[in-house]
Amino acid sequence: MREVCVIGVGMNKWGELWGKSIRDIFVESALLAIKDAGVDKIDSMYVGCMTSGLFVGQEHLASLLADYLGKVPIPSTRVESACASGGLAVRCGFIEVASGMSDVVLVGGVEKMTDVSGDGATYALATAADQEYEVFHGATFPGLYALMAKRHMHEFGTTRDMLSAVAVKNHDNGSKNPLAQFQSKTTLEGVAKAVMVADPLTLMDCSPITDGAACAILASVDKAKEISKNPLVKILGVGNATDRIALHSRKSLTTLNATVEASKRAYEMAGKSPKDIDFAEVHDCFTIAEIMVTEDLGFFEKGKGGHAALEGKTALDGEKPINTSGGLKSKGHPVGATGVGQIAEVVKQLRGEAGERQLKNPKVGLTQNMGGSGGSAVVHILEVM
Amino acid sequence: MREVCVIGVGMNKWGELWGKSIRDIFVESALLAIKDAGVDKIDSMYVGCMTSGLFVGQEHLASLLADYLGKVPIPSTRVESACASGGLAVRCGFIEVASGMSDVVLVGGVEKMTDVSGDGATYALATAADQEYEVFHGATFPGLYALMAKRHMHEFGTTRDMLSAVAVKNHDNGSKNPLAQFQSKTTLEGVAKAVMVADPLTLMDCSPITDGAACAILASVDKAKEISKNPLVKILGVGNATDRIALHSRKSLTTLNATVEASKRAYEMAGKSPKDIDFAEVHDCFTIAEIMVTEDLGFFEKGKGGHAALEGKTALDGEKPINTSGGLKSKGHPVGATGVGQIAEVVKQLRGEAGERQLKNPKVGLTQNMGGSGGSAVVHILEVM
Repeated sequence: MREVCVIGVGMNKWGELWGKSIRDIFVESALLAIKDAGVDKIDSMYVGCMTSGLFVGQEHLASLLADYLGKVPIPSTRVESACASGGLAVRCGFIEVASGMSDVVLVGGVEKMTDVSGDGATYALATAADQEYEVFHGATFPGLYALMAKRHMHEFGTTRDMLSAVAVKNHDNGSKNPLAQFQSKTTLEGVAKAVMVADPLTLMDCSPITDGAACAILASVDKAKEISKNPLVKILGVGNATDRIALHSRKSLTTLNATVEASKRAYEMAGKSPKDIDFAEVHDCFTIAEIMVTEDLGFFEKGKGGHAALEGKTALDGEKPINTSGGLKSKGHPVGATGVGQIAEVVKQLRGEAGERQLKNPKVGLTQNMGGSGGSAVVHILEVM
Repeated sequence: MREVCVIGVGMNKWGELWGKSIRDIFVESALLAIKDAGVDKIDSMYVGCMTSGLFVGQEHLASLLADYLGKVPIPSTRVESACASGGLAVRCGFIEVASGMSDVVLVGGVEKMTDVSGDGATYALATAADQEYEVFHGATFPGLYALMAKRHMHEFGTTRDMLSAVAVKNHDNGSKNPLAQFQSKTTLEGVAKAVMVADPLTLMDCSPITDGAACAILASVDKAKEISKNPLVKILGVGNATDRIALHSRKSLTTLNATVEASKRAYEMAGKSPKDIDFAEVHDCFTIAEIMVTEDLGFFEKGKGGHAALEGKTALDGEKPINTSGGLKSKGHPVGATGVGQIAEVVKQLRGEAGERQLKNPKVGLTQNMGGSGGSAVVHILEVM
């Protein structure tokens, strides 16, 4: 396989973008990535999107977005794995470049979530759970993650303050990210006393409904050296894995096995271990998710993820900064775009362009993107060359 | 890139499968493909599906189907490009094997279309057109293809009988395919006098609503030689291309440019030209589509596709047999599965296992799968080794 790197990234301001359609949002971020890469000739593209069919009544996005980006007739593919759709689009683009089929591939993610009314968004998101065994009986995502949180608290003594600490840190980081949906800070008490959604998760434990897109331009390292002026960021490792989709089928409620397996593949391919990772963007769709994921990636011992957050180990100045962008909690969570948004943040950090939230000389970053209640996961490991 | 071949295919009986769910249908065909290939260890999988979100309220299919197939935690990706989703899943699987990332990949397609009531299926399918510029104003697919048919008749003198001839031939072929939705034959008059759907297209010019799935197992040629007892069918060429999605944006209503571009890529990669193709499975979602596609693939001069059908050139004993399986018209059109179903038919023909509809010693076959009104297309060229 050929070596592959990221030569450009683009992300628009995320939030409730009432005045823009799904095509506007995607094209905006794609043009930013193309400009950042300094290359206009794209050989092929992949778009991650969870459910534009339910959110805006539009499928066939691969062609629609290639069209609006002015790139017809290039090959274009939409990929979906619920909230891991963006990460999976990056994996597909990686493989296409690695194979030699294409030299330069645009990978993007997009979701327009605010065009549905009433409980439309909750219904659309619930299609990432098992329709026949979970959704039909009334399960929604806050409920599913609340079950995991309760069990984690029961098994490991994880506390209300530990959950809150994740939200506090991510809002702190988001306040330094001008593209984040929320720039507001919060407190341990502010999280704990917010309106209850599904015990023990309050509104401030949950990531928001967001419109947004993010894109990245991938190229073979040889091609990149020819055309790119940016510091090159190499994709060292790629891992994707699946898990039983319904919670009742899993051996444990406190381990996200798709994340364990995906990271195992990525670490092995990259020749790296958890201690080699300087920082990571992980899938904090709920505060409990960040705690479990930082354990399942091997950053902290099982049961110690909450302690790490409360003790500041995952803060910007901690030993293992997590979600420097603000994470899904504060940057926002346009589900299909999230995995590519993570790549954008890691690339910006590795290139030293992360502004107020810039880490000191990070060399190796990791992204972990997850579908539904953890039924799928995609992990990437990136290193600045 | 490594050479890739198909070592097994599986397809269940297509039709109105009221007693089966989307997971049942997919797993059934996947197990047939696995049995046919004689290999149980799958490294990764791709599933083409257009809109299970709208048809059965279930996204996150990649994990759900890996789970029900008993293949968790392998990587799994769902791809979508409307009715070309299946073909695109094959392309993704091809690239993954070609890259060296995986040795054995399962590619499949599935759609469960009969679980929606009223005009639910028409709405779901319309999401493959441009929501803002076509669907919002009432356009549906029979209407869009009727516009193309009217223009083709106006420009080239294509007649009612020529459209009918496509349906008659495909029902003849389907009557020899035990897995086809319809085994009934029809006549030129039977097609012309069927109830009008969108002038000039009658009900018998339209492919049906279908539940079904199809799967194929891809492997590197080296790996295949080790593990497979079947005659190996090599994928010589792969082409994917996009077109402006809304009809009003195209230069011509009578040329499907995504098909032209996708076939150009596939011919070039395969080192073949239209005259080297012994037979083809093409995307006859409407009779006019088969006529235009056989022209756009270079089999017949532009404007002569209807003549070719009426003169029997595309029949089983013609110079260029088209849709030996019965095509979408008679075999059925479970939209996400169609592109993989085409691969299954070509492989069966090339291995001499097509029963009553078997061609005499075909060596090279082609598949053409198309999304929406032609906004995307995927072409594969296969040769028996």
